[in-house]
Amino acid sequence: MGLREDALRLHEEHKGKISIESKLSVTNNEELSLAYSPGVAEPCKEIEANPDDSYRYTSRGNLVAVISDGTAVLGLGDIGPAAAMPVMEGKSILFKEFAGIDSIPLVVNEKDTDKLVEIIQSLEYSFGGINLEDISSPRCFEIERRLKEVMSIPVFHDDQHGTAIVVAAGLINALKLVNKNMSDIKVVLNGPGAAGTAIIKLLQDFGVKNIVAVDRKGILVPSREGLSGHKVELAATTNPEKISGDLSEAVKGADVFVGVSVAGALTPEMVESMAQDPIVFALANPVPEIMYDLAIEHGVKVMGTGRSDFPNQINNVLAFPGIFKGALSVRATQINEPMKMAAAKAIAALISDEELTAEYVIPNPFDQRVAPAVAKAVADTAVSTGVARI
Amino acid sequence: MGLREDALRLHEEHKGKISIESKLSVTNNEELSLAYSPGVAEPCKEIEANPDDSYRYTSRGNLVAVISDGTAVLGLGDIGPAAAMPVMEGKSILFKEFAGIDSIPLVVNEKDTDKLVEIIQSLEYSFGGINLEDISSPRCFEIERRLKEVMSIPVFHDDQHGTAIVVAAGLINALKLVNKNMSDIKVVLNGPGAAGTAIIKLLQDFGVKNIVAVDRKGILVPSREGLSGHKVELAATTNPEKISGDLSEAVKGADVFVGVSVAGALTPEMVESMAQDPIVFALANPVPEIMYDLAIEHGVKVMGTGRSDFPNQINNVLAFPGIFKGALSVRATQINEPMKMAAAKAIAALISDEELTAEYVIPNPFDQRVAPAVAKAVADTAVSTGVARI
Repeated sequence: MGLREDALRLHEEHKGKISIESKLSVTNNEELSLAYSPGVAEPCKEIEANPDDSYRYTSRGNLVAVISDGTAVLGLGDIGPAAAMPVMEGKSILFKEFAGIDSIPLVVNEKDTDKLVEIIQSLEYSFGGINLEDISSPRCFEIERRLKEVMSIPVFHDDQHGTAIVVAAGLINALKLVNKNMSDIKVVLNGPGAAGTAIIKLLQDFGVKNIVAVDRKGILVPSREGLSGHKVELAATTNPEKISGDLSEAVKGADVFVGVSVAGALTPEMVESMAQDPIVFALANPVPEIMYDLAIEHGVKVMGTGRSDFPNQINNVLAFPGIFKGALSVRATQINEPMKMAAAKAIAALISDEELTAEYVIPNPFDQRVAPAVAKAVADTAVSTGVARI
Repeated sequence: MGLREDALRLHEEHKGKISIESKLSVTNNEELSLAYSPGVAEPCKEIEANPDDSYRYTSRGNLVAVISDGTAVLGLGDIGPAAAMPVMEGKSILFKEFAGIDSIPLVVNEKDTDKLVEIIQSLEYSFGGINLEDISSPRCFEIERRLKEVMSIPVFHDDQHGTAIVVAAGLINALKLVNKNMSDIKVVLNGPGAAGTAIIKLLQDFGVKNIVAVDRKGILVPSREGLSGHKVELAATTNPEKISGDLSEAVKGADVFVGVSVAGALTPEMVESMAQDPIVFALANPVPEIMYDLAIEHGVKVMGTGRSDFPNQINNVLAFPGIFKGALSVRATQINEPMKMAAAKAIAALISDEELTAEYVIPNPFDQRVAPAVAKAVADTAVSTGVARI
């Protein structure tokens, strides 16, 4: 059978992907009186007196909500909350499998930004952290920003930062192979949506000065007419040479191309116009901006995609499980920029200089060293930047 | 150690009471590609095309949310959402233990009725049903009523209806012992809050005509000054003889006393003023309106309490697991009055006439026949009343 049939059968056979289990036995009056009434009043009273005790007496300390409004699901777009649920359940089981984190999938039938923020904020005491998922751009930027302002648990939009962290990890290692530095390279980012915008910001944190962002209408530059929202800000903070034009203009002389855009966007001619030893991360799924073999044929030195059937898979699962594990372990109030940078460095550092090749700049998603290494780096950085609560 | 220490240790040792588990394995690329990207897009697309398929491809069909705002937790009052969580987690594990239902505990930090309704409504597509819990009276009545109007999945405030159903079950059997009929008896209900009001309504559905409701200020009667909210309605629909006065006046000649009020509210003198073979359900917890032995000593024929250390424990766990199991099994859009009546009858019917004694009018909470019997009765009634969707 094909992927479609296999995937449908798997989902139907198990009737979804998650179950909620009890950690205790409640099969007689004595057990019932401890786990439920009247004994349960005791942890309630403790938490009322000391709210932090909710981490001591409830599951909250290892519990993340995966929340979506269903407006930008995979490549499917605005398919609505009910149809988004299989992705959220999938994310939940990845949290469990890769980091032992309990995770509750929630879909919210609300598109108004103010109300969505209010709804998610109101659930703060149910969880230890919030993983936002598949929320459309540019709404996702405001929603995440406002939730971070009003909530005291970590809020992390994985479509943005998870992708950015893994791209940064891959780039750290790829640059070693071509002997270039973050501060000297020119990066072209095609597709400045949720992930693209976060990639730009994280690479800037890593010292990249010359990033050119390109959308469907061309290069972002302040002089371009009709720019609005986050693209005005991007145009102002990128493209120091104020170049304009289309993607083929942007990539001339670029050291790195990162695509979070559409199949086939990067042509062989464009690749040949790049600087020496070009690095290409073509993340459009399932068909990348340029196919792996074609890119190599036209001189690409290090090539990454989102696919598991080529080397260097850029997969968010390398980041989010360890990031939340680390943040929860020190009860961090947020996941800040230094924590994201630490996660990227930790992923990159798992590949030694001896092991590093053009086909191996990113660990395999199933490399079991990844989540613990990311968790430790994130926890340490939460402590050193003062956002840890224990 | 005492109950307090044991309960705290149990909660701390396990760090809460629930875990979220994966029903599938995701340990290699092939499994990942079916459970998550790219295969997960297939159930998403199916659900987008046919929203009911969310019951086919996600965990929703066996999933109930236990939701509270923390305003009326146990006997502790308004202790807030964080402190309410141990109770919600407890309820979740009871759903699993008693009926195999997956259940997600959620606490909402919002007291405004309009906003709370909006928040819970927005989560509809995440769940198959909503169990409201520990929401203060009289807000709970409006919140439940409005949610039932706007949601197409079952919404059930257990503090109201769970208690009412088990009281009705006990009364069905107790009346057999004393050879009285629902339509002839006088019932005094002390404490017309969430549970008390639901008990009144359900007993009226069962044909009881003469119910006198009594609150801290005395008998509810339309002529009483200062009545407001749901008590105006109760005064109008109860107390056909329009009597007034305090509890001691109310219980004169009553066949049944149901207390959901405070310890010691029913004195031996009051019991002696009741009709022949009085039935007393004294549900104040942990200390009932009258102690078991004292009630029997003063002539009570059938006595029930909320406690597990006396006969006839009126425990909600006899009702809610089976009720949701039945409602979910036929995808009922609501839990209507006939379904509640069917649940009460099913609980009562588990005790045969031969087994029935004054000390055994209600099955034991751990009687494994209860949940399946309730589920079947509720499902059948959902079908016969036209609220089943499969």
